[in-house]
Amino acid sequence: MATDPTPRGRRPGDSGTRDAILDAARARFAGEGFRAATVRAIAGDAGVDPALVMHYFGTKQALFVAAMEFPLDPAQVVPRLLGPGVDGLGERLVRFLLTVIDDLGDANPMLGLVRSAVGHPDAARMMREFLGEAILDRLAAAVSEHTGADRPRLRADLCASQVVGVLVARQILALPELAAADRETLVAAYGPTIQRYLTGSLAP
Amino acid sequence: MATDPTPRGRRPGDSGTRDAILDAARARFAGEGFRAATVRAIAGDAGVDPALVMHYFGTKQALFVAAMEFPLDPAQVVPRLLGPGVDGLGERLVRFLLTVIDDLGDANPMLGLVRSAVGHPDAARMMREFLGEAILDRLAAAVSEHTGADRPRLRADLCASQVVGVLVARQILALPELAAADRETLVAAYGPTIQRYLTGSLAP
Repeated sequence: MATDPTPRGRRPGDSGTRDAILDAARARFAGEGFRAATVRAIAGDAGVDPALVMHYFGTKQALFVAAMEFPLDPAQVVPRLLGPGVDGLGERLVRFLLTVIDDLGDANPMLGLVRSAVGHPDAARMMREFLGEAILDRLAAAVSEHTGADRPRLRADLCASQVVGVLVARQILALPELAAADRETLVAAYGPTIQRYLTGSLAP
Repeated sequence: MATDPTPRGRRPGDSGTRDAILDAARARFAGEGFRAATVRAIAGDAGVDPALVMHYFGTKQALFVAAMEFPLDPAQVVPRLLGPGVDGLGERLVRFLLTVIDDLGDANPMLGLVRSAVGHPDAARMMREFLGEAILDRLAAAVSEHTGADRPRLRADLCASQVVGVLVARQILALPELAAADRETLVAAYGPTIQRYLTGSLAP
């Protein structure tokens, strides 16, 4: 269950092995999607035992996070955001995301992932499967557990549509007022949207 | 002030001339952005008089709409959506967009424009300038006029971030529950979001 992505030992070749696993993971995830790519196949491509992959990365999701340089680990972030309950979850989620985006600046690997997903059907499938399993199903389960809200996964997908829209409109299209707005203005604008998608009524 | 994109006469060469203007427009818009590309320069590239460009297309925005196969004419759509006032504007806007998206299906040229804009900085600038001038400034002015709301252009940009998010998350990433949701469910989810961005409080 090790989740530390750095090798524990200092044997020669460790970092080469880790890099070989990451290369194999990138190729498998890109070619087969997140779901179909197995740790066993990735290990085989890298010429190592699957147990070593698990030793380095802990889970397939954590391997994806490391291989794609995904800038946050959903296994930690989703429980942390939900820790205080669902009240204020929308604001916490938006403030957290904007902080990550602003800290990363132009080097934000999420932008590369969005660009790939928008440009290539295989990358879109990879992101759909990873986001679904690592973030959206998890968010849906937690919201359902806390509130009993109907259609929890649709709610998570609605949130994703606003979050990806912020990435594209603010960071890539750079719409001027959106790019210039300070963080608290955006938290006030987007927080209630996310909160309503997660906990409000969706009845037509 | 002709806005009919089809040539009026039937002289031989008309369609070739129109195509030459559209080719020149695409090249100028892509290379220089929407703002810097002038009708005069486009006409020059196509070897015609600027007056002929205006005869065919009426405005630079309409020329862009034709050249990029943008699937709606903002000069008509924005006033039509605002015709009944700002009450219910969010729902009308979302229902209209979903209808356009669903009618176009896989052949939706908006998806190609989003893909280009996300993948290429020049295309991003072109879309930012066109969306800004043709849709977002116009929407901002109308909302400001109807409601006196503060920061109208930020409000329009917020709407754009949700609309582009729907395009990416539903049509390109194809998040499963979002892709499967019926139109009225999505109108009920997104309509109030757009309405709040346009007319609600944005105070932190």
